[in-house]
Amino acid sequence: MRLLPEDVAMKRTFAEYEAIYRSTLLGDVIPFWEHYSIDRERGGYLTCLDRDGRVYDTDKFVWLQARQVWTFSMLYNRLEQRDAWLEVARHGAEFLRENGCDDKGNWYFALDRNGTPLIHPYNLFSDCFAAMAFAQYGLATGLDWATDLALVTYENILRRREDPKGKYSKAVPGARPMKSFALPMIMMNLACEMEGILEKDVVEKETDASVNEVLNLFLDPRRGLLYENVAPDGSRVDGFDGRLINPGHGIEGTWFLLDIARRRDDKILAATAVDTMMSILDFAWDRDYGGIFYFLDAEGNPPQQLEWDQKLWWVHLETLVALIMGYSITRRKECLEWFEILHDYTWNRFPDPECGEWYGYLNRRGEVLLTLKGGKWKGCFHLPRALLLCARELKTLAM
Amino acid sequence: MRLLPEDVAMKRTFAEYEAIYRSTLLGDVIPFWEHYSIDRERGGYLTCLDRDGRVYDTDKFVWLQARQVWTFSMLYNRLEQRDAWLEVARHGAEFLRENGCDDKGNWYFALDRNGTPLIHPYNLFSDCFAAMAFAQYGLATGLDWATDLALVTYENILRRREDPKGKYSKAVPGARPMKSFALPMIMMNLACEMEGILEKDVVEKETDASVNEVLNLFLDPRRGLLYENVAPDGSRVDGFDGRLINPGHGIEGTWFLLDIARRRDDKILAATAVDTMMSILDFAWDRDYGGIFYFLDAEGNPPQQLEWDQKLWWVHLETLVALIMGYSITRRKECLEWFEILHDYTWNRFPDPECGEWYGYLNRRGEVLLTLKGGKWKGCFHLPRALLLCARELKTLAM
Repeated sequence: MRLLPEDVAMKRTFAEYEAIYRSTLLGDVIPFWEHYSIDRERGGYLTCLDRDGRVYDTDKFVWLQARQVWTFSMLYNRLEQRDAWLEVARHGAEFLRENGCDDKGNWYFALDRNGTPLIHPYNLFSDCFAAMAFAQYGLATGLDWATDLALVTYENILRRREDPKGKYSKAVPGARPMKSFALPMIMMNLACEMEGILEKDVVEKETDASVNEVLNLFLDPRRGLLYENVAPDGSRVDGFDGRLINPGHGIEGTWFLLDIARRRDDKILAATAVDTMMSILDFAWDRDYGGIFYFLDAEGNPPQQLEWDQKLWWVHLETLVALIMGYSITRRKECLEWFEILHDYTWNRFPDPECGEWYGYLNRRGEVLLTLKGGKWKGCFHLPRALLLCARELKTLAM
Repeated sequence: MRLLPEDVAMKRTFAEYEAIYRSTLLGDVIPFWEHYSIDRERGGYLTCLDRDGRVYDTDKFVWLQARQVWTFSMLYNRLEQRDAWLEVARHGAEFLRENGCDDKGNWYFALDRNGTPLIHPYNLFSDCFAAMAFAQYGLATGLDWATDLALVTYENILRRREDPKGKYSKAVPGARPMKSFALPMIMMNLACEMEGILEKDVVEKETDASVNEVLNLFLDPRRGLLYENVAPDGSRVDGFDGRLINPGHGIEGTWFLLDIARRRDDKILAATAVDTMMSILDFAWDRDYGGIFYFLDAEGNPPQQLEWDQKLWWVHLETLVALIMGYSITRRKECLEWFEILHDYTWNRFPDPECGEWYGYLNRRGEVLLTLKGGKWKGCFHLPRALLLCARELKTLAM
């Protein structure tokens, strides 16, 4: 077994950490969604689940339908070929295939329980998660229609990305042009997800383009912060949106960068990603109550978002992934030190040992703000993905 | 002096309360906005003011520009004909006249500091506040262009109200039709505000129509709650929006009803308004920490809004207005009991004696969540309006 870094007194061995992440994934989180979320009557998933798994709303949000298809397909592809997992994925994939997109291949934002469209395809991220879902599902099943649907959707995203909001944008054209970090960020991850389906050179080209946008436009090299919105030339935009920092988003982006750095054995990119992660953590860690703030104003002004000081499950989980991946690739000890701080903060507050799964929304003090296990935005995605990714990094580190 | 109701042991006399509301309005709140918000360089108002009045953002939101024009015009019309107040109103009115609306008379949502439009006229409430502003400003100045602008804007609102979001709506037409409480609610108040400008029978007709919508569609007679969104026939809509209760909105609506009941000497309407106010307060009062929740799910499910448990200035101020007006009209003692509870809660937490004016956003515990005195949504409106309305009711009660 690999020795621990000499100057970091870890509370647990890597193997002990790995056991926690793996057993929670397989013994708690996945069974919760298998048990409560399958809509056997009308197809797809019921994602609005209260603390004990009770369904409190039956609308079907395409982000969450697609993300759950992705999660179960991915578990099948990357962890274990369990038929039950593939069946859960199939349940959602068929529902989405039948109901999820309009006749131009744009994915709706929300459907009702029966699959009738409720909210227009205004949100390009629905398409991104659909592409991820059908790419994994195609790999799992070998079904050509699924792979084709992933490819067509990906092409559509490339076509729409210069004007992602299209006619739904409320901004007066040209008045204050801005680019949003969210799109190149997700495109980094999506290109990796489409590997094996897209031509290799397309993956390379798209990955390069997204990484370059992130590093050259959104990363402030002086402060080490990733801005959510910048001018098309990367300069700062005056206004609430231009000053917005979404620390969890930025840190999630750093592990997408690390994932690419590892594939390319690019040590400079890995170092930049870890430096950025550290700057964001330093900026966004709540020194009074612990945890990472949800939104901050880069200049320290009052943020527009009333939920700015809340502690969200995905922010902390993506940070755990980023830290352990950062350590694994660069062996910088501050990654491990922060990993233990984040681990303690996260595991002491988000899990619900009584009813299973994790709370998603805590207040600034780390107390439960909403009892839900799933809702309009929380589904079966960040938690299982992060648990699996952490477990895999920890397993390698433990060898 | 009128005796206090025998069985309510009031902490202060009506005259003592009146002095508090009036002196805060004239000695603290109005001077704060006069001092910090006037943009002498570029016109209009700077409403993004941090705790000490420092400007932290220079964008100009039409809601807040218009509301401040309304407030200073209204003070001039209803309280005292101070030239300085009319000059503040003029400063904003001229800026809005020059920059606020497109060539079809639709009011933009946001402009930059110079008045260049940033956000399209997607939000019909910008028009409602513009109509209120120019109606009051026209009354104050006798300027025909201002009155005409109020009338044209009002006509435009009537034309757009059946489809207020127009092309900016993301909902698939017909899939789940809903009406929103906000529009008839504001139309009740707007019709009263337009009195003296509109023909009397138009005011009557519009007031009737809005009151009927509120009572017949949005009020649940069994529970006494006002729902934010209902089906066109008033039935409940399944889904997050259909279960949404915005207690402050509902209570503000009850004083619009009381205002109309008083004009008409309609005792049944007044009783319904007070009953509704009491039901909403009972439903939405935070029994653990005090104060009124911002959003609730009617069925007790987790609400969609992450800020659901926060305590907002306008919610508590509009409730103070509703309670003292309810007492003044109906003499029901529970109005006075609740008034004192709300007064103590509100005045102990929102005012900032050190820097002046009031905080807008507190967390569930009543601690300051954002230090701002003004922002994208908080301006010079709810606080001065409520202080004046309460002071006037209290003055009459003290006689």
